[in-house]
Amino acid sequence: MDVERAHNVRVSGPDGGRVLMLSHGFGCDQNMWRFVAPHFEADHRVVLFDHVGAGHAEALYDPDRYATLDGYADDVVRICEELDLRDVVFVGHSVSSMIGVLAHLRAPDRITALALVSPSPRYVNDEGYTGGFEREDIDEMLTALSSNYLGWSSAMAPVIVGNAERPELGDELTQSFCRADPDIAERFARATFLSDNRADLPRVTAPTLVMQCRDDLIAPMEVGQHVADAIPDSVLVVLDATGHCPNLSAPDEVIGALEPFLAGLGG
Amino acid sequence: MDVERAHNVRVSGPDGGRVLMLSHGFGCDQNMWRFVAPHFEADHRVVLFDHVGAGHAEALYDPDRYATLDGYADDVVRICEELDLRDVVFVGHSVSSMIGVLAHLRAPDRITALALVSPSPRYVNDEGYTGGFEREDIDEMLTALSSNYLGWSSAMAPVIVGNAERPELGDELTQSFCRADPDIAERFARATFLSDNRADLPRVTAPTLVMQCRDDLIAPMEVGQHVADAIPDSVLVVLDATGHCPNLSAPDEVIGALEPFLAGLGG
Repeated sequence: MDVERAHNVRVSGPDGGRVLMLSHGFGCDQNMWRFVAPHFEADHRVVLFDHVGAGHAEALYDPDRYATLDGYADDVVRICEELDLRDVVFVGHSVSSMIGVLAHLRAPDRITALALVSPSPRYVNDEGYTGGFEREDIDEMLTALSSNYLGWSSAMAPVIVGNAERPELGDELTQSFCRADPDIAERFARATFLSDNRADLPRVTAPTLVMQCRDDLIAPMEVGQHVADAIPDSVLVVLDATGHCPNLSAPDEVIGALEPFLAGLGG
Repeated sequence: MDVERAHNVRVSGPDGGRVLMLSHGFGCDQNMWRFVAPHFEADHRVVLFDHVGAGHAEALYDPDRYATLDGYADDVVRICEELDLRDVVFVGHSVSSMIGVLAHLRAPDRITALALVSPSPRYVNDEGYTGGFEREDIDEMLTALSSNYLGWSSAMAPVIVGNAERPELGDELTQSFCRADPDIAERFARATFLSDNRADLPRVTAPTLVMQCRDDLIAPMEVGQHVADAIPDSVLVVLDATGHCPNLSAPDEVIGALEPFLAGLGG
């Protein structure tokens, strides 16, 4: 099966425009960008896709390949190669932020700028590092996930998205989680929540925008600050948005930060 | 008199940080940036100064030199040379936007990025171009200014700054106008409001951020759009702020656009 079809790749916007590749997070698919992508389609070549196991991209799933984030990053590079994308601004949400970092390190000539929405290089606390979770919390969460995926989804998704006063957001994320294959979701959750990409950050050579929400229970403020401190050419922008999914809950703020970032990159 | 003293140049922030040069508009001085500058002083070398005739910089005034914006642009280049500033992000408010464009065209190796707050390349309407004013409006305004500068200031400043529900902003701008020498202010107003820098815009090679407010009676939306359309590597960002002076009325929005722009430039 060819790469474009397997990942349900959708390209819009003018030829010759700067490439914006929008990459969704755990339990989501490209639909997560529907409030952001249209804004850029007039001037940019917007590339949307689904990670394996998400949306329609289950066909290529391989438990070994996707045991860590490396497999996902290889897919991003493969899509870039297949479409011969150059000078890509990779916009990654949540776990896709680190997938983007890894893809950039593999193909720095193709992915030349990173915009990271609610990134975390490590979810588990460590000595001198606040990730937001104790290892036991993560283990419990993964146990709950594997014993009752649908129950876990409907409990966790609203917590992740925050914005309790807008329950439709939690409902949407819950439904998105529930559409995923439970086995694939479990392995992706394990790859995500047990990852440690801190050592990769100082190797990033791309200009990087770090977008951090307030009251994000998955990636707290210290984590965004850590990412911005560790990536050499990066700037932390704290959005007014709350929760972990500003592309869903506050797309105008994501657009409002992306636009000047693109201006700085040269239009 | 040396350049630094004449222009009351103030430099803050760490050596080696990217240079941010903040340039005030008509009837103002560097004080206009007091809500924006401190935010960047931790990571950037922030350069503030007064144009001649503003603040304390009256000593160098020469009616011929400052009959057009070129004299002001030459001063900016001179300050950059005197301090040997390189890789400068020039942030210009109002008329200083075009002063920055001219300075960049004279010294493209020094001024390598432009952030234009409420810019206008021409205030007078022209065939196929909406500047916002008829020539007669400008002539009347300049006549009123020369016959009664203080009266003109207290009438115009609140209109310029907008935000009528916050009269302290209009009061501040009025007082700022009233501190200026009336003869110098009249010539600066003439140089500003009769300028036409449209032909300069396509020659800009720097990445450029255009910040446009809503309900700006001095530089309406069409004007910001024109600037962004005409400068090759530029992006228009429409702020939620209203009026002509977001650096005073909505500094967080100016900061919120500048930060990701700086990220795109490479931190």
